[in-house]
Amino acid sequence: MHVPDMPNAKSHAPIGVFDSGLGGLTVAHAIRARLPHEDLVYLGDVARVPYGTRSPQTVMNYARACARKLCEHEIKLLVVACNTVSAVALDMLSVELDLPVLGVIGPGARAGAQASTHGRLGVIATAGTVLSGAYPRAVASVSTRVEVFMEPAPLLVPLVEEGWITGEVPRLAVRRYLEPLVAQRIDALVLGCTHYPLLHELITSELTTLRGQVLPVVDSAEATAHDLERLLRERKLARDAGMDRDRGGRKGSLRILVTDMPGKFSEVAARFLGESVDGLDVTQIDL
Amino acid sequence: MHVPDMPNAKSHAPIGVFDSGLGGLTVAHAIRARLPHEDLVYLGDVARVPYGTRSPQTVMNYARACARKLCEHEIKLLVVACNTVSAVALDMLSVELDLPVLGVIGPGARAGAQASTHGRLGVIATAGTVLSGAYPRAVASVSTRVEVFMEPAPLLVPLVEEGWITGEVPRLAVRRYLEPLVAQRIDALVLGCTHYPLLHELITSELTTLRGQVLPVVDSAEATAHDLERLLRERKLARDAGMDRDRGGRKGSLRILVTDMPGKFSEVAARFLGESVDGLDVTQIDL
Repeated sequence: MHVPDMPNAKSHAPIGVFDSGLGGLTVAHAIRARLPHEDLVYLGDVARVPYGTRSPQTVMNYARACARKLCEHEIKLLVVACNTVSAVALDMLSVELDLPVLGVIGPGARAGAQASTHGRLGVIATAGTVLSGAYPRAVASVSTRVEVFMEPAPLLVPLVEEGWITGEVPRLAVRRYLEPLVAQRIDALVLGCTHYPLLHELITSELTTLRGQVLPVVDSAEATAHDLERLLRERKLARDAGMDRDRGGRKGSLRILVTDMPGKFSEVAARFLGESVDGLDVTQIDL
Repeated sequence: MHVPDMPNAKSHAPIGVFDSGLGGLTVAHAIRARLPHEDLVYLGDVARVPYGTRSPQTVMNYARACARKLCEHEIKLLVVACNTVSAVALDMLSVELDLPVLGVIGPGARAGAQASTHGRLGVIATAGTVLSGAYPRAVASVSTRVEVFMEPAPLLVPLVEEGWITGEVPRLAVRRYLEPLVAQRIDALVLGCTHYPLLHELITSELTTLRGQVLPVVDSAEATAHDLERLLRERKLARDAGMDRDRGGRKGSLRILVTDMPGKFSEVAARFLGESVDGLDVTQIDL
C-alpha cells in the first residue's frame, strides 16, 4: 500500500514576508500570483525605511525586531523581501530562527546566472546592496563562469514611490544607470531592488535601445516566488489548495502590518501590490 | 553713567541645531556664515531619516528625543532645522523646553512674504510639509495680503543626496515642479526644504526661463540664520565675538552628533555643509 507523504503539521500556517517599507509588496504580489492559496502576513517597517543607508549593525537590529514580530503570528517560513536585509542579516536570521528563511538575493542571483548566456551579468540595486557585495557572492556560489557587474541606482526608489514610472525623468535616470553596464557588454540584467519591477518595461526598453538587442531582465521578486514554491515543497510546508472553491481552490489571505501609516499609504501600497488594499487587513504596530 | 546691557549668563553656551538627517547642515552652514563666533551642536537623526513620510505622532516622539539629547549639551537655544518637525512639533517643543526654539518655516514665510511684491508666493517643499499647511499659516500670521501656492517636490531630496544637482534629470524634475506654480503667476518662491539650497542656481535659472523674468528665490536656511541673529540679540544670548583673533574674533566650534554613520556620510555632509567634515568632531550616538 502506498502511503502518501504527510504534510508538515505547520503547512496551514501563514508565510511571513518582511521589508523595510512597502517595496517588498512586489514580492508578496509575485508570491500571491504563484501560490494563491497560501496565507501571507506582510510586515513593512515603514517607520524606519529606508534601511539601505543604515549601518549593518542597525540593519541587523531592525531585522531581528521584524522577524520576532512575524514569529508571533506563528509563520511557517520567513521571506526577507528586502535586498538590504538579505545582504546583511540573512545568515544571522537563519541561525537565530527555528524556521526556513528565504532572501531575495539568492533567487535573483540564481535566475540571473541562468539567464546569462555569455557570463556577463549586470545587476542594478541600491548603494547599500552594491557595497555589501552580496550579489557577486551569491552568483559565485551557483556558477563560476558568470562575472557580475554592479551599478547602484538609488534614485529609482524615490521615482517609483512618487509614481514617476513613465516619461523623461525616469527614462534619463534609467539610461544613466544602464550606460556603464552596457559599456561592459552585459548579456542579462537583474533588478536587484524590490522597487524596480515597476520600472521593468522602461528598463527593458532602454536596455534594448542602448544594447541594440533584447536581453533577459530578471525580476528578483518573481525569482523569489519561484524558489519559495520549491522550498515549501521540499520542506513539506506547502498548503493544500483545498476544494472549497469551484475553481483553483481556496484563496489565501493577506494581512499587512506597518510600523507607521504615512499619508499616501493606500496609493503607494496598491502600486506595489498591483491591487487595492481597501479590502485587506491593515494594522499599525509598534516594534 | 551708561551701564551696558549685561549679556545673559548662558550666552557662552552652544546653539543646538537638529534635523531628521544631514539636510539641516545647510542651516548650520548659513548660521556659521552669519554668526561665525557661535558654537553649534548639530544632531542629525540619520538612523530614522526621513521624517517627511512619518505620522505626526511619530514625528513628535522623534523630535522630543532629539531635543532632549541636545539639552544634555546645555544649549542656550534650539534651532529646528527640519521643515517637517517645524511644521508638526514646534509648538510642542516650545511648550516643553525651557529655552527659545526657532524653526525654519516662520523665517522662510516671513522672508517670502517680504519678497512677494504682488502677493502671490510660491513654496516648494516635501509632501509632508505641504500637507501640514504650515507655510500658508505662517505667511497668514505675518501678512494678510499674500496668497500662498504650494507644490510638493519630493524627488529633489534624493537628487541632492545623490549629488545630481546639475544636468538634465534635476532640470526636468525642477521644471515639472515649477510649472504649476508658474501657471499661478507667482512673484516669489520659497525653498521650503533644507535640501533645496543646493539646487538654488538651477531652480532660479528654470524659474527665470519659465516665467520670462527674474523672481526672488528665498532660501529658508538663510532666512533662519537672519532671524536667529535677531532672536539672540533680543534675548541677550549673543556670544561676544572676543578678541582672540586678529580679525573677526573667535571662530565658533561645530560638533556633529549622528544616530547612524552611513557609508557616504563624509561626502554627503560636506555637500550640505559646504566644507569638509574631516577636522570636525563627529560622534555617533543612540537616542
